[in-house]
Amino acid sequence: TAGGLEVSTDDGAFSFGLGGRLMIDSAFYREDTNDLGDGTELRRTRLEAEGMLFSDYAYELGVDFAGSDADVKDAFIEYLGLWPATIRVGQFKEPFSLEELTSSKYMTFMERALPNALAPGRHIGIGLGSRGSGWTAAGGVFGESFDDDVSDEGDEGWGITGRVTYAPWREDRRALHFGAALSHRVPDETKEIELDTRPESHITDVRYLNTGRITDVSHLDLAGLEAAWVEGPFSLQGEYVAAAVDRGAGQSNLAFDGWYLYGSWLLTGESRNYKPKAGKFGRIRPIAPGGAWELALRYSSLDLNDDDVAGGRAGQMTVGLNWYLNAHTRLMANYIRVDNDANADDDGDVAGDDDPRIIQLRAQIDF
Amino acid sequence: TAGGLEVSTDDGAFSFGLGGRLMIDSAFYREDTNDLGDGTELRRTRLEAEGMLFSDYAYELGVDFAGSDADVKDAFIEYLGLWPATIRVGQFKEPFSLEELTSSKYMTFMERALPNALAPGRHIGIGLGSRGSGWTAAGGVFGESFDDDVSDEGDEGWGITGRVTYAPWREDRRALHFGAALSHRVPDETKEIELDTRPESHITDVRYLNTGRITDVSHLDLAGLEAAWVEGPFSLQGEYVAAAVDRGAGQSNLAFDGWYLYGSWLLTGESRNYKPKAGKFGRIRPIAPGGAWELALRYSSLDLNDDDVAGGRAGQMTVGLNWYLNAHTRLMANYIRVDNDANADDDGDVAGDDDPRIIQLRAQIDF
Amino acid sequence: TAGGLEVSTDDGAFSFGLGGRLMIDSAFYREDTNDLGDGTELRRTRLEAEGMLFSDYAYELGVDFAGSDADVKDAFIEYLGLWPATIRVGQFKEPFSLEELTSSKYMTFMERALPNALAPGRHIGIGLGSRGSGWTAAGGVFGESFDDDVSDEGDEGWGITGRVTYAPWREDRRALHFGAALSHRVPDETKEIELDTRPESHITDVRYLNTGRITDVSHLDLAGLEAAWVEGPFSLQGEYVAAAVDRGAGQSNLAFDGWYLYGSWLLTGESRNYKPKAGKFGRIRPIAPGGAWELALRYSSLDLNDDDVAGGRAGQMTVGLNWYLNAHTRLMANYIRVDNDANADDDGDVAGDDDPRIIQLRAQIDF
Repeated sequence: TAGGLEVSTDDGAFSFGLGGRLMIDSAFYREDTNDLGDGTELRRTRLEAEGMLFSDYAYELGVDFAGSDADVKDAFIEYLGLWPATIRVGQFKEPFSLEELTSSKYMTFMERALPNALAPGRHIGIGLGSRGSGWTAAGGVFGESFDDDVSDEGDEGWGITGRVTYAPWREDRRALHFGAALSHRVPDETKEIELDTRPESHITDVRYLNTGRITDVSHLDLAGLEAAWVEGPFSLQGEYVAAAVDRGAGQSNLAFDGWYLYGSWLLTGESRNYKPKAGKFGRIRPIAPGGAWELALRYSSLDLNDDDVAGGRAGQMTVGLNWYLNAHTRLMANYIRVDNDANADDDGDVAGDDDPRIIQLRAQIDF
Repeated sequence: TAGGLEVSTDDGAFSFGLGGRLMIDSAFYREDTNDLGDGTELRRTRLEAEGMLFSDYAYELGVDFAGSDADVKDAFIEYLGLWPATIRVGQFKEPFSLEELTSSKYMTFMERALPNALAPGRHIGIGLGSRGSGWTAAGGVFGESFDDDVSDEGDEGWGITGRVTYAPWREDRRALHFGAALSHRVPDETKEIELDTRPESHITDVRYLNTGRITDVSHLDLAGLEAAWVEGPFSLQGEYVAAAVDRGAGQSNLAFDGWYLYGSWLLTGESRNYKPKAGKFGRIRPIAPGGAWELALRYSSLDLNDDDVAGGRAGQMTVGLNWYLNAHTRLMANYIRVDNDANADDDGDVAGDDDPRIIQLRAQIDF
Repeated sequence: TAGGLEVSTDDGAFSFGLGGRLMIDSAFYREDTNDLGDGTELRRTRLEAEGMLFSDYAYELGVDFAGSDADVKDAFIEYLGLWPATIRVGQFKEPFSLEELTSSKYMTFMERALPNALAPGRHIGIGLGSRGSGWTAAGGVFGESFDDDVSDEGDEGWGITGRVTYAPWREDRRALHFGAALSHRVPDETKEIELDTRPESHITDVRYLNTGRITDVSHLDLAGLEAAWVEGPFSLQGEYVAAAVDRGAGQSNLAFDGWYLYGSWLLTGESRNYKPKAGKFGRIRPIAPGGAWELALRYSSLDLNDDDVAGGRAGQMTVGLNWYLNAHTRLMANYIRVDNDANADDDGDVAGDDDPRIIQLRAQIDF
């Protein structure tokens, strides 16, 4: 939080920081069949407080105000007294998926890739983590987040999730990252789940890929594989995520999967900032006063069709151009080609086989 | 706000502080008849700003984000120029009930006792207060809070409330507190009121005790008596609250009442922190590095049956165990035995005579 | 943000400030025909963060919590590297109307005048501004704010707005201001607009003047003229706003307009604080320890009747008395006489020809 606020006592036992992020988006849809709705949006308007008490107790509390309600994001207490092992209680991201765990402040593209629809995201739970010079391990047991708990009747669902990462190379401008994660999830007493996602663009509300409600689900298993390679200004990053849905007697199980792969080139010579002790990427700091420029290309794919569930399948190609005006401010432009199959109809709400083109822009600052 | 932020000018005429609190709960219900819904919850995620301007003007603004909307809590301006007399304008807690007025950060149990359903809580109004070495007096006229004003048609309801406290003993580890409060309340033009409460557990939405809508109410009178005794590591606290509902001609009046009594034992030798000039309890600071442990036992009772209104009657016994990791962080565990009568059916929504057992856990930090 | 927080690096390249405002209102309606609903309200409970990064990048993020949801107010990034020219991206007030642009902290009356119903207010967009010793110029292209985007289907509406101001006199206690603004606005794909306003009192929900939904609108043009004159403790301020609604073939166009004029007298000798480089008014600082007193009188008028649209016409006279306890705290009292015509019936929801009297009070602090 440079420019934000950070104070601490001289011995470092107590500290308090306050920061935030602001992302302003606009999107223009070259529509094919369906109406997607050009427009503008405050994508994230977030305030975040964090601090340390009595050396060993850390906390974080972030609230996002975009969309005119208040979404609590990270909200946890962490015990650091067993460092490098840590214990965390509260609402935070389950340890699953490199792209999910990398902060939205540092994402290479404006939105996460399609397979992110399968990542668990933030829930309330308890987690353990540890780390070494080139590895991290994290696991936890989680209930539901606020928003998921649609009805207060019946017990909540829960999940158990773990992730390990290893970085054989971890130099400043040269890194190689591998990661793997598993999650076992039990839905709440309704036994229903729904998997869906927007086309990597947030201003529209159309979620082409949408399984609708899958009923009688006993559990859901997720597996994820991650790899990333940084070589000076160049980097590659990719993930594969698979989901297996176990249904009650007499019904076949379901399998969905997705993957993405992207390359990034920092034209001005900077390097993507891999953090081996966190197993994710961090902030890029421009070298020259004119800022940093980044060109990136991503292909992502997600298949939510299986058996009697026709959630749709899509492949999307994105070209991204980022201008880092300084370490805390950037402008982003994404051009996306969407290729949907006939089932990609938002559970019947729109026409399938729709192949729009998307141009979207973002101005971002964090403090 | 240790670890939070506090700044002031050298002469103390201006100050500003920013802090917050975070409470993470989970509950497990050993259900009897009805489904209560195990789960997890961010019970409070609050940010609070407070400060002083020109020596004599103080303000406070607290917002809670739990539950995905933003609830304004304390939001008032206070004039201190007539100290020890103070004038307060804004939204704040009406001066009624020791347990209600003691901050949720310092409560002995995870939830306030059943009779708290009768306490007025926070409303918008104007209040006067004064205090001496062993006494406090406070009173005010209040309208409705935001949330109460369900319809904007018709005039708001209002109330007038006063409380006095006296502490014959007020040493560091030895205190005796007495308090009494009265409130006269007039409902809004709908002339309806509804009294209800959860079973001292917040994750479930079942409110066993529930009068439903009582119509044609001309006014509601409340009376409360408080006593607390601190003797070294031991303390006792109890309250009795009675409500009288005055209805229109031809209908009998209604009387409801409730009480609780609890004892607490700080096993590690600390003492509950009574604040005689505020007439309520404050923060407990552990003596030893290992933190403080507290064992507590509470019985509470509320009777919302009278005449034609069958709101239900319940008695609940709670065993509480608190581990204060440090002065700002604690873990809490509560085990509750609920004993409901046949009318305790959430105004017909659930079955009566339900006697569940509740285990609930909390991790809490404030800064 | 005196008493609030403001920190900056020694070279001023980075800064961070956190402040807020709190306004507590109550209103008493001497009703004529319709029920307006006396009551109390937290009118504004706002937290605002602002700062500067790397000398040239400023940001602001304000959120209002009144009404139990979180309304994002100003949320923008500003580039100052071309000073006095500035570029702004995000959500902010379109440059239109002196009263709209003057902060609610510094308004002379509790609510803005009736013609404010025609001012665009805050939207998401990109704006350019420049200023000299006695002039300002600002313009921008805007989409919709969050709240306006009722349906996510169909493209958003947009507008283009510009304003210039000139101050031939701009001394400390003597200023003369002229301003003019234009706005061209295209509604979203529904092609509907609705113009309405409360009677300069916010606690009631009745919007006497209300056009209802005007359909088939191709665009809306706004023009505004402003003048203000400060002469020691005396000041005059007035505006005229006209709106022209262009409808589809076969339908006549519509014209609405309104104006207000007010005078203010600072009885204790202070002067209203005109800021020529911003083209708006700022904070009044009392001279004497007893604070400042201000007496003000306003007449405002708005006519939303034209052709087949009977939105109503009203004239309102307000007497205002303000007591500035200090530079950051004030008490306000307004007495309003409302004179509605027969069409001023909130689009049929209430009776027309209603002429209530309103007394409203405010306590305000900002930090």
